[in-house]
Amino acid sequence: MGAPGGRLRGSLALLTDLYQFTMAYGYWRAGRHREPAEFELFFRRCPFQGGFALGAGLSECLAFLRTFRFSQADIEYLESVLPITTEKAFFDYLRTVDASEVSVSSAPEGSVVFSRVPIFQVKGPLLVVQLLETTLLCLVNYASLVATNAARFRLIAGPDKKLMEMGLRRAQGPDGGLSASKYSYVGGFDFTSNVLAGKLYGIPVRGTVAHSYVSSFTSLDEVNPRVLRPVSGEEPVDFPSRVEAWLSKVCRLLQVPAERVHCGERAAFVSYAVTFPHNFQGLVDTYCVMRSGIPNFCAVALALNELGYRAIGVRLDSGDLARQSVEIRQVFRTCSAHFHVPWFESIPIAVSNDVSEWNLEELAQEGNEIDMIGVGTHLVTCPLQPSLGCVYKLVKVNGCPRLKVTEDEEKTTIPGSKVVYRLWDAAGFPYMDLMALEEEPPPRAGKEVEFWLLGRNKEAGKAVPASVEILHRLYLKDGQICQALPSLTEIKKHAQTSLSKLSPAHKRLQDPEAYQVAMTQKLHALLTDLQRDSP
Amino acid sequence: MGAPGGRLRGSLALLTDLYQFTMAYGYWRAGRHREPAEFELFFRRCPFQGGFALGAGLSECLAFLRTFRFSQADIEYLESVLPITTEKAFFDYLRTVDASEVSVSSAPEGSVVFSRVPIFQVKGPLLVVQLLETTLLCLVNYASLVATNAARFRLIAGPDKKLMEMGLRRAQGPDGGLSASKYSYVGGFDFTSNVLAGKLYGIPVRGTVAHSYVSSFTSLDEVNPRVLRPVSGEEPVDFPSRVEAWLSKVCRLLQVPAERVHCGERAAFVSYAVTFPHNFQGLVDTYCVMRSGIPNFCAVALALNELGYRAIGVRLDSGDLARQSVEIRQVFRTCSAHFHVPWFESIPIAVSNDVSEWNLEELAQEGNEIDMIGVGTHLVTCPLQPSLGCVYKLVKVNGCPRLKVTEDEEKTTIPGSKVVYRLWDAAGFPYMDLMALEEEPPPRAGKEVEFWLLGRNKEAGKAVPASVEILHRLYLKDGQICQALPSLTEIKKHAQTSLSKLSPAHKRLQDPEAYQVAMTQKLHALLTDLQRDSP
Repeated sequence: MGAPGGRLRGSLALLTDLYQFTMAYGYWRAGRHREPAEFELFFRRCPFQGGFALGAGLSECLAFLRTFRFSQADIEYLESVLPITTEKAFFDYLRTVDASEVSVSSAPEGSVVFSRVPIFQVKGPLLVVQLLETTLLCLVNYASLVATNAARFRLIAGPDKKLMEMGLRRAQGPDGGLSASKYSYVGGFDFTSNVLAGKLYGIPVRGTVAHSYVSSFTSLDEVNPRVLRPVSGEEPVDFPSRVEAWLSKVCRLLQVPAERVHCGERAAFVSYAVTFPHNFQGLVDTYCVMRSGIPNFCAVALALNELGYRAIGVRLDSGDLARQSVEIRQVFRTCSAHFHVPWFESIPIAVSNDVSEWNLEELAQEGNEIDMIGVGTHLVTCPLQPSLGCVYKLVKVNGCPRLKVTEDEEKTTIPGSKVVYRLWDAAGFPYMDLMALEEEPPPRAGKEVEFWLLGRNKEAGKAVPASVEILHRLYLKDGQICQALPSLTEIKKHAQTSLSKLSPAHKRLQDPEAYQVAMTQKLHALLTDLQRDSP
Repeated sequence: MGAPGGRLRGSLALLTDLYQFTMAYGYWRAGRHREPAEFELFFRRCPFQGGFALGAGLSECLAFLRTFRFSQADIEYLESVLPITTEKAFFDYLRTVDASEVSVSSAPEGSVVFSRVPIFQVKGPLLVVQLLETTLLCLVNYASLVATNAARFRLIAGPDKKLMEMGLRRAQGPDGGLSASKYSYVGGFDFTSNVLAGKLYGIPVRGTVAHSYVSSFTSLDEVNPRVLRPVSGEEPVDFPSRVEAWLSKVCRLLQVPAERVHCGERAAFVSYAVTFPHNFQGLVDTYCVMRSGIPNFCAVALALNELGYRAIGVRLDSGDLARQSVEIRQVFRTCSAHFHVPWFESIPIAVSNDVSEWNLEELAQEGNEIDMIGVGTHLVTCPLQPSLGCVYKLVKVNGCPRLKVTEDEEKTTIPGSKVVYRLWDAAGFPYMDLMALEEEPPPRAGKEVEFWLLGRNKEAGKAVPASVEILHRLYLKDGQICQALPSLTEIKKHAQTSLSKLSPAHKRLQDPEAYQVAMTQKLHALLTDLQRDSP
């Protein structure tokens, strides 16, 4: 699985903010560049005012770290932009820098994660791990955001409807589009329209025709070739004339004036059917859905049926999708019964048209006959919250825990090298992420553990977990991958499993119950001590 | 100037929706693939409820077109995903496809453009120009959106404040971040924090330090080296002790208790100053701005001053930015007067902290002492409207004008090969984009011309333009670039010129006056005829 990074020519080592280099020089000149340091990557609030996020982007971060190194051209560019007083020896040092002393622990990619709990823990020489900040954030933020957004669409749509990502033209350029396709799949989408994403990541691709195809035809004379051989292998028949015959029957049945049914649209359908007889799907809203698109579709599909082929669906791209899907299903049932074609009543109906989380919920409530939903803009741009605010904070340097104190409690970091335990209740749901210092003994199943909830520093609570899981695994040890990396399909599966185990109260899209994130007594004491010592 | 496409390994030819290929096969099998066709790329509404957009992305589209071609691996992938009945000869044909018969006219990159007026006109064989749709949209939509967003920030900030883009970590992955940096620059930003964007596009880069740098220090003992040589070249001095001496004076002057001024923060500033004596800038809000950050900064800056160096600024990243900037400026003035250091009162103040269009307007109204503003999330993700809805519509095929008729007037396309004339008034403002059929004589300066405003089809109007400009230029003729392409700096300059000529009424960010977009009588008649002929 290639990282977008991997697809960019050369290394991504310069894809970072300039201040990382000025700081690096500061550390280097002070002789602090090799001090052991630890950063944590986390977000402060779950996106979309929801109760969870899916952590994503790990594989791409690891791919980036494995090739992290400055080229000669990179160094020359840096020499041109850093202050002229910058010592040459610093650039010589940068030439030797790589991630061979960097270690990364992470929740498995696709895991459900919560606010203020580290997704990644990154250890290594201060200079190197500081330089990684922006690139890691860039690789994790959007990946996790769009995976979470996709998961929300999946939660609303339910497990049975097919979901297709089709946002390429609305994404932030080529790579934004590829990331959107990849992480929407992780979050629970079935298909993408993006062919390159299909090729690079093995995501199933789908697609039919656009309105431009339909409107490019004006009459049946333009259809060529006109003949179609029945599935049985008999002599080819003149397909347009069969369709015309079926159209009369359909129009009579549906009481639609045949002369108002658009013949350019019919020509487009006939042409497409002759081209893809096993895969005929009609885009039915170029003109009028019920008086042109659907009669044309039925005529073509019934003519195909006569030759032994089954149409695979219709697509609707405008108007009231739920209402129209119900009306279309009714027509399919009428045709099915009248013409004795049983499969006709269950022809899949696909819809698109600026589907948002909000109108997907409306659709779900109204009752509809929709089988597949295409989502573009509202999936890939995440308009409810177009960025995930992951941050990357120093928690330890040279053996000493560090924190950032601010007046805003939420922005205060939790100091020190930590282990995160996910506590599970007897019903089989995770209910608390408990951060502990590395040196503490782990909480044990069935044993009481004291905790201090984040943001409620006044009082301790007590919990007895039914089982205890360590959230992070070590993926990179001294620059070497030390854990088998899952395929994209496995990541997707893990995300769905992880979500399925989360209590519905935390999965509610509006006003979810907040998942508990807490510290042990020892960690709480360390935080309090450090806060007291700072001005 | 490399296209993001150019930075992706291999061609972007597959970066498109699958239905483009099913349609391509449909056209090919019907023998229509070489029919001459024309598409137009435009948006239906100006973004952000504004009155204009900047058209951007042309250079990248041209770079994409020049390399447009399917590799053997691309073809093999397509064979694996198209229906099994797809003829082998079609894939052989795809192997020969490129943009050598494609022509593109466009408004110069960076031009002010308006709704429903084509940004691009794309002509060529039907199959090829259809295949280009998604990629062109992907390259234009975000580029134009973020350039327009940047232009709005520039309009609010006014011409004097420096604007810096710093959104890399919030963009849609690496390439989203690079596009954001590039097109924010086009839209009127001065700097970027993104080093790779600096290297690839020549955009000036800026940056100082992060909070993690400041909080990584605990005491002045950690400062190393401690000595700094005066600008004059005299003997190096022990810098930390100079700073301590200045701190006492500053604290007395500002009536701040010296023991509460954070010594870790001071160590970080001292270390940075020794490292970059000509470029010292203080990030003053890691602890308390007025009781720690500013006293520390002043002590270090005054100690530097003694050695002949001038600090270059402070940066604030939290709290009430306008109010704090005023308080900080007051301190600088006090120090300037008291210590007789004239330049001290005008030390630049830079701010960041989730700056949005809305709070930039607030800042602008409140009165402030800010010199430079860093914008990240709200610039690159365009939360007010995170996607530009450009579409790509067939307007002519095989010599016949085409339109898409819908019940929604705004979604009806304007048929036929057109020339767009921009009409200017006597005051030197453009006031109407007039679309005409190619074969019509152009409107002439000083001569009356009849027009029909889009969306008001009931009545014609008359105008007498003071001057007339043809909006589009031919950039690609039969696959060859036929117009010198401007550099990024020239595009930026054109954008600023184009915007400066637009009437303030259309530039208002809220409730702008709508710019007039109209058709000639002949084009209006064609549209009416075609609408009448469709069901």
